[in-house]
Amino acid sequence: MYLSSLNNEKVKAWEKLLQKKYRDKENLFIVEDDHLVNEALKTNCVKEIITIIDQEYDVPTYIVTKEIMRKISSQVTIPNIIAICYKKEFHNLEGNIIILDDIQDPGNLGTILRSAVAFNFPNIILSNNSVDIYNPKVIRASEGMIFHLNILRCDIKEFLNNLNEDYVKVTTSVKNGTNIKDIKAKKYAIVLGNEGAGVKDEISALCPKKVYINMQNNCESLNVGVAGSILMYEVYNE
Amino acid sequence: MYLSSLNNEKVKAWEKLLQKKYRDKENLFIVEDDHLVNEALKTNCVKEIITIIDQEYDVPTYIVTKEIMRKISSQVTIPNIIAICYKKEFHNLEGNIIILDDIQDPGNLGTILRSAVAFNFPNIILSNNSVDIYNPKVIRASEGMIFHLNILRCDIKEFLNNLNEDYVKVTTSVKNGTNIKDIKAKKYAIVLGNEGAGVKDEISALCPKKVYINMQNNCESLNVGVAGSILMYEVYNE
Repeated sequence: MYLSSLNNEKVKAWEKLLQKKYRDKENLFIVEDDHLVNEALKTNCVKEIITIIDQEYDVPTYIVTKEIMRKISSQVTIPNIIAICYKKEFHNLEGNIIILDDIQDPGNLGTILRSAVAFNFPNIILSNNSVDIYNPKVIRASEGMIFHLNILRCDIKEFLNNLNEDYVKVTTSVKNGTNIKDIKAKKYAIVLGNEGAGVKDEISALCPKKVYINMQNNCESLNVGVAGSILMYEVYNE
Repeated sequence: MYLSSLNNEKVKAWEKLLQKKYRDKENLFIVEDDHLVNEALKTNCVKEIITIIDQEYDVPTYIVTKEIMRKISSQVTIPNIIAICYKKEFHNLEGNIIILDDIQDPGNLGTILRSAVAFNFPNIILSNNSVDIYNPKVIRASEGMIFHLNILRCDIKEFLNNLNEDYVKVTTSVKNGTNIKDIKAKKYAIVLGNEGAGVKDEISALCPKKVYINMQNNCESLNVGVAGSILMYEVYNE
């Protein structure tokens, strides 16, 4: 179907998906550019495709003007294609878990998602004050790995309290704790903190296992995406 | 000294430091906010301080209006303080080296600098097409770790060709190579590539040792800041 009017109701609805509140309300999000749209298509989560190129897909396809694309895209350089995707429903926990306590930077979150797939942590639990995982910048930084993850946004304190006892609840501590290399467990739930404030005390208190990453004293801390990735890497390669 | 005119020559000179070409010409760069300025002061690289708060430092201090601060800051929310810093001269190589082949994202570069200090890679060599290491976003993402590093921007092909044979030249390869865990050497020169294109073939050809990071097959690659950090982490903890 061809669309050329900026006032079309479809166009207005797509544009709203740039805002978290409408993504939440509609349970939809946008994915931009060929590479990411292809990743989305592989996982059958695409509701419709919007493109400026005259080409049809196996899902409802809208061929639009560059002006429309500019309006609905989050990017300065407009993409050739956008997919409107359904959020996947959270399913039962299987395997390791990453829990994020108020992570703020979209780039850091995207990086963590990418590493989570690389090191087999298929479950991502975000606190209610974390950046929206369906933010276009997060999707981009995840390099499409977001489609392979089981995602839940919730009260993480409650989540930790109700978590099955098979899981060893781990968080980082600069001052004391065990070298991550020396921990052995069957199932891990690793909590990572906010970029500035770290893990909140009340959340840290729910994690019996404190770990550290061995490094030089003159560096206070690592980037949270790096720290989280090294912890997952060690678990995967233990 | 108090300054209130936006037309003051000093103000104009400071503002120019937002551009790479003037940072290169003057051999100066700017550092914003208390935490980073304190890190800079510790390493004696501060030429002068500019602040909106009436306070003197051990270096020439300029107390300015918020309008001036807005003009010379790179940030949307203006800082209370900016330090104008001298770039450090590159000194002889001692210890491990990270070589960056056209890295583009300031956040990724800052993250790598932070991990380089954490895992004792004190030398950073950047290709001429890399993002400027003195870009304010890089400084911020480095969390001040930039002041602890020995930095050179140059033709990295030439650098690799002239590098002392004590160094084992390492780069990543997705297809083949050795697990980074299985490499033992005295001195490492690790080459990391561009976010999209990876390490250029002509640069990769100069690195006899190809390594990989063990991970799941469904993830094509890691963020370059994460990959570089894991390699350094493994070398530091081998």
